[in-house]
This record gives sequence, C-alpha cells and structure tokens, in this order.
Amino acid sequence: MESAGTIEELGRDECLTRMATQRLGRLGVVVDGVPLVLPMQFAMDGETVVFQTNQGAKVLHAPLTSVSFEVDHVDWDDGVGWSVILQGFGADITSAVDERSEELRSLAVHSWAPPPADRWLKIIPRKITGRLIRIG
Amino acid sequence: MESAGTIEELGRDECLTRMATQRLGRLGVVVDGVPLVLPMQFAMDGETVVFQTNQGAKVLHAPLTSVSFEVDHVDWDDGVGWSVILQGFGADITSAVDERSEELRSLAVHSWAPPPADRWLKIIPRKITGRLIRIG
Repeated sequence: MESAGTIEELGRDECLTRMATQRLGRLGVVVDGVPLVLPMQFAMDGETVVFQTNQGAKVLHAPLTSVSFEVDHVDWDDGVGWSVILQGFGADITSAVDERSEELRSLAVHSWAPPPADRWLKIIPRKITGRLIRIG
Repeated sequence: MESAGTIEELGRDECLTRMATQRLGRLGVVVDGVPLVLPMQFAMDGETVVFQTNQGAKVLHAPLTSVSFEVDHVDWDDGVGWSVILQGFGADITSAVDERSEELRSLAVHSWAPPPADRWLKIIPRKITGRLIRIG
C-alpha cells in the first residue's frame, strides 16, 4: 500500500483553465437509478461545456436534469495529477434558435458516439470544484 | 465540426486487459439523486476493481448499490482512443474477514482522497463493455 499524497483545492478560474487544456472528459448521468459514466470529447465556452452525441445515446438523459462532468490529467513521471468536477444541468441545444446556442453549435467538437452525432448538448454549470494531487 | 470516426466494440477480455494498463479510473455514484464522477486510482484482481478511500468520502455511497467505473486512454497523435465501462455493485471490504478480501486489501492502491484513506471498496462486476474509437 502506497502512502497518500498531498491535496490542494483549486479555485474556479484555475479549474476552468485546466479543463480547457483537455479534450476528453467523463459525463455522469443517472439512467433508471443507475449511475453511468460516459467519455465525451468536449469544448468549453467560458464556463459552459458543449458536446455532441447521437439520437439514441444514453446521454440524452442529461437534458433538464442534474449531471456531472469530470476532467482530469496526470503526469505520472512528475507524480502530479488534477481533477475538476463540474456539476450542473444538461440542456439540449440542437434546435435552439437563440444566438448563444448558434455560437455554441459552431464549436469544433468530435463525438465518440456512433454517427450521426447530430445532437448538441450543453451543461449549465452550478458548481465547479477541483483538486491538485501530489501522488505520494 | 469534425467528422465522426469509426467505433469498434471490445470483448470482455479485451476490456479487462486494457483496464489493467491504467491506474486512474472514474467512479460514478448517485448522491441524493445527483450523479457524481470521482477520479479513483484502482487495482484489478481478475474482474474485480479495488480502491481505497476515506471515511467521509462521497464514494461511500458506492457500497451495496449500483456503480459504474470508467477507464479510458487516448493516443491523440495516432487518433485512437478506447473506453471501458464496468457496471456493478459496490462493497465495503474494510473489515471483511474472508481470505479473498484480505487478498484484495494487500493490493497496492494509491488514494486521491484526503487521508486517512483507510476504507477499502471493491466493485463486483455485472456488465463490462468497451469501445475502440478511431477519431475522425
């Protein structure tokens, strides 16, 4: 058993800056009472997370309900890792006609869902927390 | 908008082999109806996932309920990624006196939770699925 390392809380701005360095995050949704964790490539626009998926995806449980989105990165050689967890509400912006939604749909996001990945979702953030971990 | 890539389903053995190459995964739990995604270093023993956490961790919502555990890896240069999702049931084996639990508690697992990370949890797998993604 390895010893525990030190942990440092990250501020909201630092969390957002770090999130923006990554392309893959993990979306947490609840489907029939069971938590699912789904890898999603994403784009950030300010504090808003945007991604694409397909019509049949379980991720469509995300709109209008609580979701979490986790992004992390570890440098195993340096023994330093961080993780940011954004909690918020999912919203389907596929057909939204407001200017903001049009802007979000212009972002470059690759989808891991089987094509056609023609649905756009965003997460409206409520709480953003993060940790820097020095692995002992 | 980038085009979608190709997706290939991975068999159970291939999923387990790939999981075992990684040290960090993401645990999905439901806390008060809200899905949380928590980064966890883990060890594998066959199909069983083992990790350590602390007394106060939200992850203690995992025992005796449905959880998901996701592990992925992407080689951005080669444009290939994979993700495995293990769905199962959490169990607290901190005080379990059976031989199997003692074996699991002897595995080397680092915890990202604030110390003391003196609680041992395992996931009893029910369903293991994975995908290989060629990023278009």
